[in-house]
Amino acid sequence: MTSAAFDVLGIGNAIVDVISHADDAFLIKHALNKGSMTLIDEARAEALYASMAPAVEISGGSCGNTMAGVASFGGKGAYIGKVRNDQLGAVFAHDLRATGVAFDTPLATSGPATARCLILVTPDAQRTMNTYLGACTGLGPADIDPKLVGAAQVTYVEGYLWDAPEAKKAVLKAFDAAHAAGRLVSITLSDSFCVDRYREEFRTLIRDKVDILFGNESEIKSLYQVESFEAALEATRKDAKVAALTRSEKGSVVVRDGEIHAVPAAPVARVVDTTGAGDLYAAGFLHGFTHGKSLAECARLGGIAAAEIISHVGARPERPLRELA
Amino acid sequence: MTSAAFDVLGIGNAIVDVISHADDAFLIKHALNKGSMTLIDEARAEALYASMAPAVEISGGSCGNTMAGVASFGGKGAYIGKVRNDQLGAVFAHDLRATGVAFDTPLATSGPATARCLILVTPDAQRTMNTYLGACTGLGPADIDPKLVGAAQVTYVEGYLWDAPEAKKAVLKAFDAAHAAGRLVSITLSDSFCVDRYREEFRTLIRDKVDILFGNESEIKSLYQVESFEAALEATRKDAKVAALTRSEKGSVVVRDGEIHAVPAAPVARVVDTTGAGDLYAAGFLHGFTHGKSLAECARLGGIAAAEIISHVGARPERPLRELA
Repeated sequence: MTSAAFDVLGIGNAIVDVISHADDAFLIKHALNKGSMTLIDEARAEALYASMAPAVEISGGSCGNTMAGVASFGGKGAYIGKVRNDQLGAVFAHDLRATGVAFDTPLATSGPATARCLILVTPDAQRTMNTYLGACTGLGPADIDPKLVGAAQVTYVEGYLWDAPEAKKAVLKAFDAAHAAGRLVSITLSDSFCVDRYREEFRTLIRDKVDILFGNESEIKSLYQVESFEAALEATRKDAKVAALTRSEKGSVVVRDGEIHAVPAAPVARVVDTTGAGDLYAAGFLHGFTHGKSLAECARLGGIAAAEIISHVGARPERPLRELA
Repeated sequence: MTSAAFDVLGIGNAIVDVISHADDAFLIKHALNKGSMTLIDEARAEALYASMAPAVEISGGSCGNTMAGVASFGGKGAYIGKVRNDQLGAVFAHDLRATGVAFDTPLATSGPATARCLILVTPDAQRTMNTYLGACTGLGPADIDPKLVGAAQVTYVEGYLWDAPEAKKAVLKAFDAAHAAGRLVSITLSDSFCVDRYREEFRTLIRDKVDILFGNESEIKSLYQVESFEAALEATRKDAKVAALTRSEKGSVVVRDGEIHAVPAAPVARVVDTTGAGDLYAAGFLHGFTHGKSLAECARLGGIAAAEIISHVGARPERPLRELA
């Protein structure tokens, strides 16, 4: 691989998280699907927000969290995502740039507001996410600079981008630009319901283009429509070049051709909020991968980052991950 | 006292806190006055924000924090403060209403944005605050509804309001309306530099109008320009009807006529962020006071609320204070 200005370029939905605590009764009353991500429109976002407890606002977005994690490990990152020129857009941009990640996607100057994800954290530390995509729907191929893509060892995207048709086109343009420059591309499956929505496209993409696949147990089982993790793992081995599959407290399993590595989860004193666990696993893994580490070491770094993020509220690291590595 | 719809009506600068961690070197580099509140203009706010680490946004404002505390104790509260019709204004209003506090001050529809306080928390848990008042400067006498004031047992205001000339007029109107309705008025001195700016006005107000005074050791020493707490206490006893003076880990001292009560601080496992300690002390005290508790019990409730708030980042309670009481 020729030298690269960036270790990882992330492309994702640029979202500010609005996090509050709720009990199971709240989820039932508002017909929320515990543990998953649901897309909501602006009216629903306003109604749900009005019923929520006092909240804190923290920059989020699955891939944004990953990039903050890469930077926290000391990696060189860049990000492409769309916010509006509003207050929450300024918050998102500030927080990402403050980590050291390059973020220069032009702001939307009209249209819907910066995206918000209304997150309810239940006493069992599970998070239930309700996303108003807002300005994210404005991300498109014009936002992809092939030179930037070519300057990153790995271009990493979220499956969630498939929910915005122009964003999907942007991803495909970026993937082609990456491969044309001799770089790698990576995707996370994001969410089992997201997999449900785009199963065939994802399968084709993984077979034909993806170099590094991330998914958790329920996502990968949904992808191949199988009942057991073992069956999903077997199917993944046939399709994917490199795959890192996360299993919550059971750790992760990484496969590449004949290789297979099962790595235990890092210990956590108390799980407070699982938001961002998968995002930060990807951060640790990609940081290791772009620094020539073994797959087992990549998985270990992923586990460390995931453990840090679930020990507090919010999906951006509170402690420098390079110190924990 | 005749029956009241509200226990406490708060009037304050309606501010969203932007909180990040920083070391002492950062404070020195940016010439920040550790432990105090400094007013900054929009350009300075933007420059300082750009240099800050990733932050979290949490509704704040000294009096807003107090009212959230009153509600968390189970008290009935109302709030008057000015935000703009922007995203941070919506955040502020949501978070206060979600606690159960009535908040119906008309939004500013033009002019400066909703106020922000850029807070740097150092490893010693001290907070250094930099406030861009923004829309708060639009608060004025027209925002004071004498009927609302008359419906509250106590009208409580922050000394910080003196930094906006129209807001000061609003306070004086509210104080007169409260007394005309046979209600009580209360003020916190807010900050020793604030006392420096308005010393004579504050002294006159305390002698002539204030029924319940809140101040910490440095504020009260600044008010009477004395070196020792004992001398400040003695001066306060002569001027104030009821005064609750806070002394950080030394607890608080409450005086009324011949009475004097020294109450120890509530224990705290680990002090994380002292933002809001005084605000929440006032919440506990006022909740007790408006429920007919003894001064010593009011001080104890204040201490409990302060202890909760300094054990985490942010100045709004994370645990229901009524359960801790």
